Amino acid sequence: SNKKLLVLPGDGIGPEVVRETLRVVDWMAKKRSVSFDVQEGLVGGAAYDASGTPLTDETLADAVDADAVLFGAVGGPKYDDLPFEKKPERGLLRLRKEMDLFANLRPAMVFASMADNSSLKRDLVAGLDIMILRELTGGVYFCEPRGIEDLPGGGKRGFDTQAYSTPEIERIGRVAFDLARKRRNKVTSVEKANVMMSGVLWRQVMTDLHKREGEGLEYENMYADNCAMQLVRNPKQFDVIVTDNLFGDILSDCAAMLTGSLGMLPSASLGAEDPTTGRRHALYEPVHGSAPDIAGRGIANPIAELLSFAMLLRYSFDMGEDADLVEKAIDNVLSSGLRTADIMQEGKAKVSTGVMTDSILKELDKL
Amino acid sequence: SNKKLLVLPGDGIGPEVVRETLRVVDWMAKKRSVSFDVQEGLVGGAAYDASGTPLTDETLADAVDADAVLFGAVGGPKYDDLPFEKKPERGLLRLRKEMDLFANLRPAMVFASMADNSSLKRDLVAGLDIMILRELTGGVYFCEPRGIEDLPGGGKRGFDTQAYSTPEIERIGRVAFDLARKRRNKVTSVEKANVMMSGVLWRQVMTDLHKREGEGLEYENMYADNCAMQLVRNPKQFDVIVTDNLFGDILSDCAAMLTGSLGMLPSASLGAEDPTTGRRHALYEPVHGSAPDIAGRGIANPIAELLSFAMLLRYSFDMGEDADLVEKAIDNVLSSGLRTADIMQEGKAKVSTGVMTDSILKELDKL
Ligand SMILES: CC(C)[C@H](C(=O)O)[C@@H](O)C(=O)O
Ligand SMILES: CC(C)[C@H](C(=O)O)[C@@H](O)C(=O)O
Repeated sequence: SNKKLLVLPGDGIGPEVVRETLRVVDWMAKKRSVSFDVQEGLVGGAAYDASGTPLTDETLADAVDADAVLFGAVGGPKYDDLPFEKKPERGLLRLRKEMDLFANLRPAMVFASMADNSSLKRDLVAGLDIMILRELTGGVYFCEPRGIEDLPGGGKRGFDTQAYSTPEIERIGRVAFDLARKRRNKVTSVEKANVMMSGVLWRQVMTDLHKREGEGLEYENMYADNCAMQLVRNPKQFDVIVTDNLFGDILSDCAAMLTGSLGMLPSASLGAEDPTTGRRHALYEPVHGSAPDIAGRGIANPIAELLSFAMLLRYSFDMGEDADLVEKAIDNVLSSGLRTADIMQEGKAKVSTGVMTDSILKELDKL
Repeated sequence: SNKKLLVLPGDGIGPEVVRETLRVVDWMAKKRSVSFDVQEGLVGGAAYDASGTPLTDETLADAVDADAVLFGAVGGPKYDDLPFEKKPERGLLRLRKEMDLFANLRPAMVFASMADNSSLKRDLVAGLDIMILRELTGGVYFCEPRGIEDLPGGGKRGFDTQAYSTPEIERIGRVAFDLARKRRNKVTSVEKANVMMSGVLWRQVMTDLHKREGEGLEYENMYADNCAMQLVRNPKQFDVIVTDNLFGDILSDCAAMLTGSLGMLPSASLGAEDPTTGRRHALYEPVHGSAPDIAGRGIANPIAELLSFAMLLRYSFDMGEDADLVEKAIDNVLSSGLRTADIMQEGKAKVSTGVMTDSILKELDKL
């Protein structure tokens, strides 16, 4: 059975980093005889330009049908004044919601050769490897009612609903426990149970779930504000952090920046496994955005997208060995001193997007 | 007219650091002939122990009646299993809401002698001085409806409402502009307008307000996730950050930890100025919590509370000179090498809570 891959390059540097990743896809076909059926689609501003919506129903259907989606990035100043529902990011949010990609895995890790890139002191981040697991289809991102209404005396009121249910919390909790079991057996669950009712329920359900299904796992509850502090103070205290959609958005970006190399961080967004077919929907995307300021200049860092592809191999196709290969090739090239502009440091060699990928491909040939 | 001060020491190290601050209040009476009518009250767990509620109506009335409230800290493991409405922090939240303390000023600054305490590299934080202005009486902290309901098929649903209105956004925006004018004339307004309707309104109202009333001020809108990243990447890019209650909670703690010395950060929570009397409600508290693990051992850092008192002098009584004195004394003592345990570093002298205050008082005598 052929592996169906939908690529959605999107906007800004999205197409540039996806193009590089497709070179690795080609390499895999030639050298490892793993071939993918690659289909391409439009999303974000690119889709809006072509069809007046950031995601067409057809593209959504293709995404649902694919074994995995490789996503670039969306957005750009050109689209800033579009109405809310037409904005590029609505395309991404719709994909997440309609494919029910509730589990967003955002590893924050530091390659040995990159520890000096962090704004944190070297010791605090060298060897860092934590996993932020963000609930991605619930909470304030999607709940109703929401809107902007006129106030009787003039002025307006903008409102949103934040909500979580027992089953939503349990299913993300189980993913956290599974991940921790393959890592260092520690789970930190994050909310604001001292302030929010959804947080009270979150803490209660997670704590109960840990008692029932978390045998052998160390478990702690932490407030979101404290978690932000602890990430800055001593990120290595964490293994898996599990949290809701909004806290996950902020805390994962905070953790990403701790590594000092945002241009290198991948993510996976996974749906539930179908109990009969074993299939699950999945979308892989770099943590960085579309970076319109550097788009089209050939200087973007392709590594986050390449590592997203490695996650795709691992989580969608159980091809852990091939994923290891890609990661190893990247590690070696970084150790050899090559850097794109965003991660450039004294004494290293600055290279373009294309040369970075060339070198990674050469390294793959050697491995 | 005598200055009415209500002190609410609270729990954990709260009473210890408030006690030290009262020594400076005494010093001011003796040496600067500024006297305060000091009244003391219970809040948090201490209030619950005495009367079954974390804030009595009487204490609330005293707080409303006072010219300023000096707050310690609340909370502790002893109270973890109390029902939501009895928890120590509800006392603090009720004070904020009923006194309408909508403007929470949280400076994140680094004393010259403390730059090495940060987990960030020295250059990134030396001389840091940013102000996080957090809206404190609206948003998901207080909006209705909120609750936990049973789901038809079993399980529960916890829900909260996040909302902001035009007048709420404008009044905190004006405070941000006023603060920036006394500082470096730059305001960054933070929300998630790409996801939340309250964020859409927030961005629109702030942007309009800046056009109407922000002459001479540099202004930018930023998403909350990006702000968390930028704080870690390069905190000195900011001057005043203005944001809502929940984002403010997380981002101010992140910023606080960047300084590496949480035990040194004060905050002020201010109400609106009464147009006829010029009075406004105000509460001053350290950013750190009740730290139950070190309570009662005489090792807590009194500086955050002392600096909160300096803010009290400045914002409630327009005694900027006296505030400067207190800050200067603290700066000198730190430069001389004294440190409490939480900020201890090689080559410095570790001292107790009491000795730290002794030294600050001696320094005040000299100034
Ligand atoms: C683009 C935006 C809607 C999105 C989010 O807020 O989830 C992004 O910040 C992310 O983290 O993937
Ligand atoms: C104690 C808690 C309710 C409070 C808050 O969330 O506002 C605290 O974290 C703070 O920032 O003052």
